[in-house]
Amino acid sequence: MSLTAIRFDSALHLLDQRLLPRESRWVTCRTAAETADAIASMVVRGAPAIAITAAYGMALAQGAGADMALARAALLASRPTAVNLRWALERLDPLLRAGADLLTEARRMHEEDVAINRALGAHGAPLLQEGVLTICNTGTLATGGWGTALGMVRSAREAGRAIHVYALETRPYDQGARLTTYECSHDGIPCTLLADSMAGALMAAGRVRSVVVGCDRVAANGDAANKIGTYNLAVLARHHALPFYVAMPSSTLDAGCPDGASIPIEERPAEELFAGLRGVSVWNPAFDVTPAELITAWVSEHGVSREGPLP
Amino acid sequence: MSLTAIRFDSALHLLDQRLLPRESRWVTCRTAAETADAIASMVVRGAPAIAITAAYGMALAQGAGADMALARAALLASRPTAVNLRWALERLDPLLRAGADLLTEARRMHEEDVAINRALGAHGAPLLQEGVLTICNTGTLATGGWGTALGMVRSAREAGRAIHVYALETRPYDQGARLTTYECSHDGIPCTLLADSMAGALMAAGRVRSVVVGCDRVAANGDAANKIGTYNLAVLARHHALPFYVAMPSSTLDAGCPDGASIPIEERPAEELFAGLRGVSVWNPAFDVTPAELITAWVSEHGVSREGPLP
Repeated sequence: MSLTAIRFDSALHLLDQRLLPRESRWVTCRTAAETADAIASMVVRGAPAIAITAAYGMALAQGAGADMALARAALLASRPTAVNLRWALERLDPLLRAGADLLTEARRMHEEDVAINRALGAHGAPLLQEGVLTICNTGTLATGGWGTALGMVRSAREAGRAIHVYALETRPYDQGARLTTYECSHDGIPCTLLADSMAGALMAAGRVRSVVVGCDRVAANGDAANKIGTYNLAVLARHHALPFYVAMPSSTLDAGCPDGASIPIEERPAEELFAGLRGVSVWNPAFDVTPAELITAWVSEHGVSREGPLP
Repeated sequence: MSLTAIRFDSALHLLDQRLLPRESRWVTCRTAAETADAIASMVVRGAPAIAITAAYGMALAQGAGADMALARAALLASRPTAVNLRWALERLDPLLRAGADLLTEARRMHEEDVAINRALGAHGAPLLQEGVLTICNTGTLATGGWGTALGMVRSAREAGRAIHVYALETRPYDQGARLTTYECSHDGIPCTLLADSMAGALMAAGRVRSVVVGCDRVAANGDAANKIGTYNLAVLARHHALPFYVAMPSSTLDAGCPDGASIPIEERPAEELFAGLRGVSVWNPAFDVTPAELITAWVSEHGVSREGPLP
């Protein structure tokens, strides 16, 4: 059975990604507030999946006759870094003003996302060689389906190429250890799990041919915000002369953001790391910024660009 | 009260570092086999602490009239990477042949280690500036007392200098999150905990002035094996033009080992990372090798060397 993480019938159902892979439990959201809570608490995560979820949240608000400005504000504030969230809400704005049915558009965005990822994967697959290192989860669980960086791997494997995935644990939330391994196991993609600290040693051992990551917001100059640890990988890839690819659906490009320094970086609660000793503080940024000069190519549904992100 | 992790009366008592900081429980070893088990299962860890523990293990064997060759072999095999273990056993060899009391020598090695770390700290302290990033635990818990890399911080603070420690979580065993934070909290050293994946972002934010690490074996050419993730830090430090110091008691130098490629790297069980999904393997090396060209200076009890490790 194909993996899905977002379903909508009379309500929005989200596969609770905090519990995977040990438990498959669904969370039901009946209001925009519940939807915003689910995004903030990371029931659902991944920039494209957050965008689709927010669109469904707006549809729920419309269906309930809720205050749409409040619903929009709550969803927009649920997580600060992924720009796809804002993109989804802005796409709904004119429809909302015109009194159109938002659920129809949310469903369309969900379907489109899979098609976008398929196109991105087809463009990116030829770049990959055996031995792909990745961080976080960028697959079906992070999107409407198929995935972005992991979608490139899926597309390459669909084309008959042998690709082994090296999945970084991705502390502190363990998206790699919990979600990418789960997807790979589910879909028969050969996968090796390692700690984030092992990336350099894996490269030095000659086992990595390319690094592929997703992104949460790409600035106009190509600087890319993505899961914390991505910047480490970009520096390590450069040191080992390995290509570093950013899988970027065009909805992740923030043309109004000039560079990485302008991207807001979410800091998550200290409790996600070990905490509680007197005098010990915790720094827990959820994302970092990789400067454009460390990025070999940006891969979107429109193609591969080595000069900067395609609009 | 001063922190201690190794005590000897009629038996060897080891503070169980697997349970810290939540629980302070001591493990008692009455035989060399129990001592070897305690090293292998990481009740005690840290290259200097392992060496002292192994020496006490030999003293236990001698006291019990055990087969000394077997005791030596079991202790030597307990962990493969830290060369201090072999150094300690070789130091006892002539005494054993001469029928001397090994316990006296083990106690002497324990006391000497603190003095060595104090000397190393005094040499290294002037190198440090506010904002020290470190990995694993290299303090009292990893040594006979005071510590190596963390000992440099202690010496700098004893000299009245403000030094903030940034402690990496140090997956998968969390020595930074559990032990370094515990030591810093215990001894009033200001400390911020962050995930291994956040090191690059911390450097990019300008909060690190130097990186200081311990080591488990240094080859004759200066290549240094240390806790997995150290190599990541060395590459990141180079990229950010930050000094990268290796705190190296001279017992950690393996003059018979020409370079890093000759250092055996221990792989630990898959279960230390999340595991158990069909088709998902785990790579769990406990150490990596940092090439000499990425090391700014080697700091030992004999002084600071920028050309290579002092003999």
